[in-house]
Amino acid sequence: MLDVNVFEKLKRGPQVIVLKDASAILGFAGIGAGDRVVEAGAGSGFLSVFLANVVGEKGKVYSYEWREDFAKLVEKNAVKLGFEKIVELKLKNVFDGIDEKDVDAVILDLADSEKAIGNAFNCLKENGVLVGYHPNVEQIRTFAETAITIGFSQERIMEVNTRDWLVRNRGCRPVNTGLMHTAFLSFWRKPIAKPQ
Amino acid sequence: MLDVNVFEKLKRGPQVIVLKDASAILGFAGIGAGDRVVEAGAGSGFLSVFLANVVGEKGKVYSYEWREDFAKLVEKNAVKLGFEKIVELKLKNVFDGIDEKDVDAVILDLADSEKAIGNAFNCLKENGVLVGYHPNVEQIRTFAETAITIGFSQERIMEVNTRDWLVRNRGCRPVNTGLMHTAFLSFWRKPIAKPQ
Amino acid sequence: MLDVNVFEKLKRGPQVIVLKDASAILGFAGIGAGDRVVEAGAGSGFLSVFLANVVGEKGKVYSYEWREDFAKLVEKNAVKLGFEKIVELKLKNVFDGIDEKDVDAVILDLADSEKAIGNAFNCLKENGVLVGYHPNVEQIRTFAETAITIGFSQERIMEVNTRDWLVRNRGCRPVNTGLMHTAFLSFWRKPIAKPQ
Amino acid sequence: MLDVNVFEKLKRGPQVIVLKDASAILGFAGIGAGDRVVEAGAGSGFLSVFLANVVGEKGKVYSYEWREDFAKLVEKNAVKLGFEKIVELKLKNVFDGIDEKDVDAVILDLADSEKAIGNAFNCLKENGVLVGYHPNVEQIRTFAETAITIGFSQERIMEVNTRDWLVRNRGCRPVNTGLMHTAFLSFWRKPIAKPQ
Repeated sequence: MLDVNVFEKLKRGPQVIVLKDASAILGFAGIGAGDRVVEAGAGSGFLSVFLANVVGEKGKVYSYEWREDFAKLVEKNAVKLGFEKIVELKLKNVFDGIDEKDVDAVILDLADSEKAIGNAFNCLKENGVLVGYHPNVEQIRTFAETAITIGFSQERIMEVNTRDWLVRNRGCRPVNTGLMHTAFLSFWRKPIAKPQ
Repeated sequence: MLDVNVFEKLKRGPQVIVLKDASAILGFAGIGAGDRVVEAGAGSGFLSVFLANVVGEKGKVYSYEWREDFAKLVEKNAVKLGFEKIVELKLKNVFDGIDEKDVDAVILDLADSEKAIGNAFNCLKENGVLVGYHPNVEQIRTFAETAITIGFSQERIMEVNTRDWLVRNRGCRPVNTGLMHTAFLSFWRKPIAKPQ
Repeated sequence: MLDVNVFEKLKRGPQVIVLKDASAILGFAGIGAGDRVVEAGAGSGFLSVFLANVVGEKGKVYSYEWREDFAKLVEKNAVKLGFEKIVELKLKNVFDGIDEKDVDAVILDLADSEKAIGNAFNCLKENGVLVGYHPNVEQIRTFAETAITIGFSQERIMEVNTRDWLVRNRGCRPVNTGLMHTAFLSFWRKPIAKPQ
Repeated sequence: MLDVNVFEKLKRGPQVIVLKDASAILGFAGIGAGDRVVEAGAGSGFLSVFLANVVGEKGKVYSYEWREDFAKLVEKNAVKLGFEKIVELKLKNVFDGIDEKDVDAVILDLADSEKAIGNAFNCLKENGVLVGYHPNVEQIRTFAETAITIGFSQERIMEVNTRDWLVRNRGCRPVNTGLMHTAFLSFWRKPIAKPQ
């Protein structure tokens, strides 16, 4: 069980994936206990620890992050929450290759992430899921074109938004202002090879 | 790893919790591998198997469902996906008591669910999370008032919505129609008892 | 033609109806040139001048506002935009009666506005439209019950939201934060009396 | 006063601009009584009659539509609602020129509408507003680039969505499904020429 309030206590460097998106990535990809997941770039490691909580000790989160300062932050946060045995930090550019094989899911949240789709395809097991996280429409388009060319089948491309509510004696209503956009999420599946 | 497309192949009886809500329940409650979770009512068992995938073999999902026909459906679906050892069906009305102790989370999705909040409080461990799922505003209000009276602290009350996008050569745009509302989700935490 | 940017230059007192809601009130009620409209409470007069621009010199906006300080603000803003002949200020509590007859539309944006529904019904022409503006769900419910009891037929109850987009060379995306809620709008029609 | 329910009784040919968008176009452009507005393509004439209701007898709506079958439909619908003196049909391709001068607003809702931006600029009065209506993101981008090149200043680019609510004795909630996307609206202003 992860107390999601701890996120506020973690050290922040680069922009983090917020709970609404982390939840949807997890849920729509179907990630669960025992799964082996690759993510890049790890950023501050918020998604890393969120995933670690779900895959558990029988699973593994391989966090690719080539920037040393970010990588240290990820490790610090993983240790803080007791997930240091589940989160394995890879100080490496994901464009240069992914070392793991037959992983269940790959999550890409970095600039020019379409350049890593080929590596993602190779390291995924059949029926495994690739997830893209992109703030701009042009990025999801480029990503989609590359993913299809490389052989992925499209599951869905979507945005997810939450709206908090105030529930009080003097009346119930949504909050006035809030987060309206973070990124578009896209989900892709590596097809099961047909027997020859 | 759960292929979320299997949901379409499961037998459906009563209305199911869709992926956007199941993901948010999971993510905002912080449920993970090894957790013990109580849910009621189980309905068709979609949330049961979704939770089972995440808590894994070291965890447990106790599914309370007093209607025998629904209960059979839940078992059938749990077996179909290989989660029969993780999902434990409780053919019992959750209003009459929850047998488990020190569980990590309780999820209530049934009519008049405020009547089960006292039982939820007693079976939860400290810092554990109660989740309410309610289609109508009046329901979240009643639920909130009861939860606070019983001793829960409010985490957040929200709605979550997704919008699918079409990403194509001839242009990118959201789909024209879709799901605009299912239910309001509310999250409550059992406080840590202060030492006397 | 109204340069909507002038709104930013108007003096503000109480909370104003923003453009997204003013536009929807106008459009879904079907207000146009030559119409006679009653509004209460006038607040800062933003909706007053917005309506004045649409009903034009052949129309009339009767702005009920019992607070003298607000009333002065409305007049000041109407003069500033040259609508002083179209906006007629009524320094009066709308609960105490509406002087006009056979108006096309009545817009109520004040606390306990259900107490003015009877007066609204009497001053409206047949097929005329009543619009309610309410931040909380409980308010629209009370308003709806009263409106139906008094004889209105329901057109629709809705919320309207806009989301701004950034369209740039480096990519297109929605803005990150913004207005998520102001109020619920409800539209009611006075039925055409059946011949006896 | 326009009874917006009449829209359902109008003859439909091509896809129509729905009320939420028509209202926002009107409101965010600041169109009012007495204004002269150019629109292209007229489609079924829904926006034409909606605008006619607002600009009134002292205003004018010039509806450009090169397809004869659509043009007839627009005229039929304008006559049906009594706006035939306000809506002036122009059986002409807007790419070939706009005959009017010093109009208050130009609304473009047709394929490749960026080709009409130059003509829109020339026919608008200073401080006049150009409105674009585009289903796809790529279209607003192309439109934006051309509008800026030609000399317009950007007011805003946005999407507007409404969600209907069910307000009933047994509880209040949004409707389950509905319209999630029609088009992106963009607003552009012709600058006031600086004295030399």
